[in-house]
Amino acid sequence: MMGNKKIKRNSTKKGMSPGSLVHIGKQRVTNASIQIVTYNDDIIQLEEFVNELSNINFPKPSKDHVTWINFKGVDIPALENIGKQFNIHDLVLEDILNNSLRPKFEAFEDYYFLSIKMVLTDRDELSYGSVPVHFILGERYILSFVDFEDPIFDAALFRLRNQPKKIRSKGPDYLLFALADVVIDNYFELIETGNDKLEELDDDISNLSNEDIPNLIREYRRVLLRARRGITPVKEAYAILVNDDLHLIREENVKYFSDTKDHILFIIDQMDFLRDNLSAINESYQSIQDNQLNQVMKLLTLIATIFIPLTFLAGIYGMNFSNMPELNYKYGYYTLLGVMIVVAMFMIVWFKRKKWM
Amino acid sequence: MMGNKKIKRNSTKKGMSPGSLVHIGKQRVTNASIQIVTYNDDIIQLEEFVNELSNINFPKPSKDHVTWINFKGVDIPALENIGKQFNIHDLVLEDILNNSLRPKFEAFEDYYFLSIKMVLTDRDELSYGSVPVHFILGERYILSFVDFEDPIFDAALFRLRNQPKKIRSKGPDYLLFALADVVIDNYFELIETGNDKLEELDDDISNLSNEDIPNLIREYRRVLLRARRGITPVKEAYAILVNDDLHLIREENVKYFSDTKDHILFIIDQMDFLRDNLSAINESYQSIQDNQLNQVMKLLTLIATIFIPLTFLAGIYGMNFSNMPELNYKYGYYTLLGVMIVVAMFMIVWFKRKKWM
Amino acid sequence: MMGNKKIKRNSTKKGMSPGSLVHIGKQRVTNASIQIVTYNDDIIQLEEFVNELSNINFPKPSKDHVTWINFKGVDIPALENIGKQFNIHDLVLEDILNNSLRPKFEAFEDYYFLSIKMVLTDRDELSYGSVPVHFILGERYILSFVDFEDPIFDAALFRLRNQPKKIRSKGPDYLLFALADVVIDNYFELIETGNDKLEELDDDISNLSNEDIPNLIREYRRVLLRARRGITPVKEAYAILVNDDLHLIREENVKYFSDTKDHILFIIDQMDFLRDNLSAINESYQSIQDNQLNQVMKLLTLIATIFIPLTFLAGIYGMNFSNMPELNYKYGYYTLLGVMIVVAMFMIVWFKRKKWM
Amino acid sequence: MMGNKKIKRNSTKKGMSPGSLVHIGKQRVTNASIQIVTYNDDIIQLEEFVNELSNINFPKPSKDHVTWINFKGVDIPALENIGKQFNIHDLVLEDILNNSLRPKFEAFEDYYFLSIKMVLTDRDELSYGSVPVHFILGERYILSFVDFEDPIFDAALFRLRNQPKKIRSKGPDYLLFALADVVIDNYFELIETGNDKLEELDDDISNLSNEDIPNLIREYRRVLLRARRGITPVKEAYAILVNDDLHLIREENVKYFSDTKDHILFIIDQMDFLRDNLSAINESYQSIQDNQLNQVMKLLTLIATIFIPLTFLAGIYGMNFSNMPELNYKYGYYTLLGVMIVVAMFMIVWFKRKKWM
Amino acid sequence: MMGNKKIKRNSTKKGMSPGSLVHIGKQRVTNASIQIVTYNDDIIQLEEFVNELSNINFPKPSKDHVTWINFKGVDIPALENIGKQFNIHDLVLEDILNNSLRPKFEAFEDYYFLSIKMVLTDRDELSYGSVPVHFILGERYILSFVDFEDPIFDAALFRLRNQPKKIRSKGPDYLLFALADVVIDNYFELIETGNDKLEELDDDISNLSNEDIPNLIREYRRVLLRARRGITPVKEAYAILVNDDLHLIREENVKYFSDTKDHILFIIDQMDFLRDNLSAINESYQSIQDNQLNQVMKLLTLIATIFIPLTFLAGIYGMNFSNMPELNYKYGYYTLLGVMIVVAMFMIVWFKRKKWM
Ligand SMILES: [Mg+2]
Ligand SMILES: [Mg+2]
Ligand SMILES: [Mg+2]
Ligand SMILES: [Mg+2]
Ligand SMILES: [Mg+2]
Ligand SMILES: [Mg+2]
Ligand SMILES: [Mg+2]
Ligand SMILES: [Mg+2]
Ligand SMILES: [Mg+2]
Ligand SMILES: [Mg+2]
Ligand SMILES: [Mg+2]
Ligand SMILES: [Mg+2]
Ligand SMILES: [Mg+2]
Ligand SMILES: [Mg+2]
Ligand SMILES: [Mg+2]
Ligand SMILES: [Mg+2]
Ligand SMILES: [Mg+2]
Ligand SMILES: [Mg+2]
Ligand SMILES: [Mg+2]
Ligand SMILES: [Mg+2]
Ligand SMILES: [Mg+2]
Ligand SMILES: [Mg+2]
Ligand SMILES: [Mg+2]
Ligand SMILES: [Mg+2]
Ligand SMILES: [Mg+2]
Ligand SMILES: [Mg+2]
Ligand SMILES: [Mg+2]
Ligand SMILES: [Mg+2]
Ligand SMILES: [Mg+2]
Ligand SMILES: [Mg+2]
Ligand SMILES: [Mg+2]
Repeated sequence: MMGNKKIKRNSTKKGMSPGSLVHIGKQRVTNASIQIVTYNDDIIQLEEFVNELSNINFPKPSKDHVTWINFKGVDIPALENIGKQFNIHDLVLEDILNNSLRPKFEAFEDYYFLSIKMVLTDRDELSYGSVPVHFILGERYILSFVDFEDPIFDAALFRLRNQPKKIRSKGPDYLLFALADVVIDNYFELIETGNDKLEELDDDISNLSNEDIPNLIREYRRVLLRARRGITPVKEAYAILVNDDLHLIREENVKYFSDTKDHILFIIDQMDFLRDNLSAINESYQSIQDNQLNQVMKLLTLIATIFIPLTFLAGIYGMNFSNMPELNYKYGYYTLLGVMIVVAMFMIVWFKRKKWM
Repeated sequence: MMGNKKIKRNSTKKGMSPGSLVHIGKQRVTNASIQIVTYNDDIIQLEEFVNELSNINFPKPSKDHVTWINFKGVDIPALENIGKQFNIHDLVLEDILNNSLRPKFEAFEDYYFLSIKMVLTDRDELSYGSVPVHFILGERYILSFVDFEDPIFDAALFRLRNQPKKIRSKGPDYLLFALADVVIDNYFELIETGNDKLEELDDDISNLSNEDIPNLIREYRRVLLRARRGITPVKEAYAILVNDDLHLIREENVKYFSDTKDHILFIIDQMDFLRDNLSAINESYQSIQDNQLNQVMKLLTLIATIFIPLTFLAGIYGMNFSNMPELNYKYGYYTLLGVMIVVAMFMIVWFKRKKWM
Repeated sequence: MMGNKKIKRNSTKKGMSPGSLVHIGKQRVTNASIQIVTYNDDIIQLEEFVNELSNINFPKPSKDHVTWINFKGVDIPALENIGKQFNIHDLVLEDILNNSLRPKFEAFEDYYFLSIKMVLTDRDELSYGSVPVHFILGERYILSFVDFEDPIFDAALFRLRNQPKKIRSKGPDYLLFALADVVIDNYFELIETGNDKLEELDDDISNLSNEDIPNLIREYRRVLLRARRGITPVKEAYAILVNDDLHLIREENVKYFSDTKDHILFIIDQMDFLRDNLSAINESYQSIQDNQLNQVMKLLTLIATIFIPLTFLAGIYGMNFSNMPELNYKYGYYTLLGVMIVVAMFMIVWFKRKKWM
Repeated sequence: MMGNKKIKRNSTKKGMSPGSLVHIGKQRVTNASIQIVTYNDDIIQLEEFVNELSNINFPKPSKDHVTWINFKGVDIPALENIGKQFNIHDLVLEDILNNSLRPKFEAFEDYYFLSIKMVLTDRDELSYGSVPVHFILGERYILSFVDFEDPIFDAALFRLRNQPKKIRSKGPDYLLFALADVVIDNYFELIETGNDKLEELDDDISNLSNEDIPNLIREYRRVLLRARRGITPVKEAYAILVNDDLHLIREENVKYFSDTKDHILFIIDQMDFLRDNLSAINESYQSIQDNQLNQVMKLLTLIATIFIPLTFLAGIYGMNFSNMPELNYKYGYYTLLGVMIVVAMFMIVWFKRKKWM
Repeated sequence: MMGNKKIKRNSTKKGMSPGSLVHIGKQRVTNASIQIVTYNDDIIQLEEFVNELSNINFPKPSKDHVTWINFKGVDIPALENIGKQFNIHDLVLEDILNNSLRPKFEAFEDYYFLSIKMVLTDRDELSYGSVPVHFILGERYILSFVDFEDPIFDAALFRLRNQPKKIRSKGPDYLLFALADVVIDNYFELIETGNDKLEELDDDISNLSNEDIPNLIREYRRVLLRARRGITPVKEAYAILVNDDLHLIREENVKYFSDTKDHILFIIDQMDFLRDNLSAINESYQSIQDNQLNQVMKLLTLIATIFIPLTFLAGIYGMNFSNMPELNYKYGYYTLLGVMIVVAMFMIVWFKRKKWM
């Protein structure tokens, strides 16, 4: 159940009841930890727990301050604890433990569940990996669940500390926007790498010696397919966030989610362009290959067509029949050479006409 | 009518009236049986019938307990009996007997009919087979119809016995969710096998000796097409279950059906990825083949282009004309060898320039 | 205007006023006839007319019985007569005379017009032909228009006579369902033939000697395209019949039309599968062809590459230069044979490395 | 601005204000003329103007009669005159002057603007050309704008004169239907030509000598693309005419527009079939080409593989080494011939096994 | 952050707060300037600022006149200044600084934000570049933001000065239409170039010597993909402008936006035609290449098949066996020549039958 196989059942196993809390996928953070940030316009407070996570008593959400709880790593009893204290549905907790969960937004009565994917990019090769990032947004609190070591939320924390007016006064829905926005920004890097790699590929296809091109095209196509599939449900989630009149998202903050939605549409546009571009490169590659084969074949045909008949003629006069009068003609040899030259000339002219030469 | 041909009319024959009860497709279970489970929070009771199925008097659905009747195998009189007692429309009974029924959800006035497909997978090869599983959900009862021996519902029964609070208190709609969820979980296995097989194929295409690749690709494509077609109408059925305000699905249980819908979307995503991946592998295979043909042709052209003119020259001086002065030159032979080497060198240089060598 | 050209204007000619009654297409039944069936729960009566069709006085629709008039063949004055008595719009009469009419459902104030297509199948080859079947459903009557000799409605008549309760008590809308259902059932035969033929094709493509494969694929594709186009508008027509709240279709009979709609969806699914399957077979065929070409080319290259240089060497020592010292060496011949064997071995080893042998 | 370039800006130029009246495209009719027809159930009157078009005083639309004004050719002052008298928006006048206008329906407060395209077909070759035909429908008048010499509206005029009841009593909306219907009927001819030409192509592809096939396929594809693009917006226009409750279209005349919409759907169906058919022909053509190449290559390989080794053997014994004992064996020659026959036989058997012969 | 890399994050960087004003993309205008135009039916006034842009005090929008402010170039403090005075949301200011912003329309409470793209075309080659043009429309004012030197708005200014009735009386929404219309008109030039270039390509593909064709096809495809992606969101924006009942667009001006929407649809139609045309050219090119390869191969096979066996025969009688009786036959040589002619004839006949000659 804890194995690393690529596709896992993304929910309970046969005969296991739904809502059972079992982790699905690879575990990245070795020691789980929980950070609790409480803030309002005036003060901000940070606590970090690394032990006995399942015994933490979380501060009650209150009108006076916003509570942000960041849960890093996988710790099932701690998750059950937080679930109980914030009254989270078992199905949501199950989803949080599922690494291959499809991104989604789900509105429960007194909280929202938003799950997106952070892409793990690599500037040197076009590859695709992803880790889910889950958020639960309540009236006065926000919970975030991450299982990787990237300090992506540190900047948000820094801003929380230093820009009291800009962020701390805008409620937990604004914080949800800011955190999710940082996660989605990672797709831009994937697109940049994609552009670089396709440019390289574009340069390489003239130089057909590279036998790796079909493999690269296949690999890139796979990466783009995966990435496209990772971002599409995020678009659907944001469409709900922006268009539905959600009570936990304040009217004046909808514009921010709309801004992220713009980014998502831009990312999808760029991915589709990359995919179409890859397709064009692929077809171009086929054409160039065909073109070269044509040229090679033309040369072969040329050489063979000119010399095979000539060689036949030479073969004739290489025969050892006792009675072959031509062999004894004084200018037999020169006549034959002349005939050969005429035949060759004739063929060359004919080839030129056919535009094969 | 009872034959095993692949495509059968999935309803009445010409001239046979609609609603006629005739079984369409292969029959898998040899001896039909009926299990009756009645339960409430306090008690649970199980009866199993294997004989005289058409004479069973089913317990009346009541407020005091939920009744689950599991009908295993095909027995038309018994089906008519159950249809009469639970007041099921003839068209539904006809559908239940139809092995190639398209999955669907249909809401009748006092019961719902949900028909889905269980995939029959095989971890060792990528194949597709399916058996329909039908459910009828009433106010206080659920009927399930299966025609295979897989003990997929035993775990549900086990949980019913042992988790009174979790399952037995949630009504027959929750049981419908739990049973259907188990059935749909089988698709995950198909996807895992698909991933393994495509990985194998991916490895094999570099090694082009395998003449079976086009056949495998065709076969896999067919399996994926069938599987995709089996799950798509299930998605439509669940969209109704989740989005329409159905009176027999309690508000608090909609979340569970929504969870299964997530799984279905995930399954479809994965299938589309498999299909696109297969497509990429196929195109890559074509490219690699073309590539290799190019290389083979280049070699042939190289050898032929270099040696055919040289052989012609040798042929010339193999002729038996009595008057061929060159033959008697002292260094005629060596001169010709020199000429041949120059011609060959020239061609090699030219090929190198063309990057064909 | 009565010609047999494939595509005809499906309505009035330029300058001819719309609603002009002219038959478009091939006429199949030579002698038109009209059957009139009147029935209620108690009695059933059948009259058949073969002469003077344009003078028939049709029974007035009445509450006491349902009237079914089946019009077989083409007879324009008789059609005008029926049109006048039942108050049918000229545009509908024009449509009835149009053999290439697109299937459709149209609701007029006091009657509905449903036009579908019966496929003409052939178990021995995959071909597509179709004849339209038109129905007009009124409050207490149904008119059907067919122009072929297939006794498809006889079974319906038989059931009308023998199952008074099941059919005769359900009104003309149920009869419409039953008659149209029989017509649509013919598509199942087309699908069966399609499956058989594609299976044959699948077997044939390994054996590439069959030069007919591209023609068969093209032909089958065309048949599937036509059939798909014939059934798609029928789906649209049934969507209206099922979803719109039509006053001439009684609430309790909607389920029957819904059942036919299920069949239509199943038929479309199967056709799409056939089409995708054909596509897979086609690509597979291309791959196998390419594969074989590769193999042939490899053999050619192998033979040529090994023997061309050797033949050149033999050519060298077949020259007649007077001064070729090697010719006089004692072991010259054996040395050359040895060199040839070494060259050939070397090439074979090289080919094995390249996996071309 | 009056040039004949293929793509023109279809509206005002940069810096020119919108609504500027400038003709875009080729002008076909050299001398503009205006026909004015006024009619009611009792009388019909026709006036034709060919001079001073910009000074005509048009009859005021009135309850007593319908006014039909047919404007033939391009004459900007006359258009401005008619625009002023009937109170037509500048943007509409601008559209009327634009030959590459996309077909559309636009409802203004007291008139409708319908613009469609008449195809210019040619029974002998599959080509596509089109001229826009514009209509303005008011409460009691209809304006039509054509710029070609085809007497397509004469039949309508003939009917107006001779069928007072059928046409003259039905108002200007019915006349709009009748005129537009005549225009759209031209597409049927295009489809007929398309069917003929594709049939010819289908016959030609077996006979691959025709080097023109790729060019024909490309040309036909282009024609179908253009025609498809010309008719699609007409479908959209008619969807509005049929579905929206338009006050200038009388309830009882909607059926007529619906009939034209049926034709449009049929035309689109046929065009899609032509396109798919062309696609199938194209792929078939590729397959047949590949097939033939395969066969040619097999023959070449066969001949070369059999004779190249034999020729090598003959070359060996054509060498002039002084010490070649085999040459002096009595049966050396016959032995070699035997060996050659055995080698050839062996190869032939091997080819037969491979099914290459 | 100010670099020129192709794909940039189009919004805030990781850890930078949203709404931060940073310019993304290349800067084209070196010295920013601001033009302020105020006008009503009676007067028009123009001011231009090139210094201290961040200190300008903009005239308050008033009922008496319309204010048009055209901001040319990039100057962040000046943008902040204008943003503050007109009360524009930070997210909009951020979008204005983003060169790769996806075109969009966004309605804020008291102003609208419309962002479109101007294409930078080149009549001599088919290339695609674009610069965003942003508009903010308020009750009595319009702001435009451009970062290029093209004097596209000068004509609008000229008309403002000279056509007081036509433009100055119609409010800022009409001016928005007029300015945006000028920008969108640039796409027509792209389409014209596209048509010319594809026509050239069409001519070139018969003459296959051009090795650049696959590269051109790839390049053109890329340009069309980019251009299609640039205009599609503009269509969406105009759909909102035309269909939603927007309070800042006066009823009588909607027709103008609708006219621009027609242009956009026409542009998209033309682009799709170009793309499909390119696709047809590409496939045609493949076919022609295959065709030529076939012809070359046929010639090679012909020559080789005829001469290889003949050369073999000549080789036989060129052998030096001491005992080869045929060599001494008086007519041996002539007999062999006869045999050779018969063999050649036979093959030629056979080729003619196969239609390979
Ligand atoms: Mg779950
Ligand atoms: Mg489960
Ligand atoms: Mg962002
Ligand atoms: Mg929105
Ligand atoms: Mg919306
Ligand atoms: Mg933004
Ligand atoms: Mg591709
Ligand atoms: Mg049925
Ligand atoms: Mg039936
Ligand atoms: Mg599940
Ligand atoms: Mg829902
Ligand atoms: Mg879940
Ligand atoms: Mg493919
Ligand atoms: Mg008609
Ligand atoms: Mg007509
Ligand atoms: Mg049926
Ligand atoms: Mg329905
Ligand atoms: Mg519906
Ligand atoms: Mg059914
Ligand atoms: Mg295909
Ligand atoms: Mg315009
Ligand atoms: Mg303009
Ligand atoms: Mg018509
Ligand atoms: Mg309608
Ligand atoms: Mg009609
Ligand atoms: Mg094609
Ligand atoms: Mg942003
Ligand atoms: Mg414009
Ligand atoms: Mg609109
Ligand atoms: Mg216009
Ligand atoms: Mg293409």
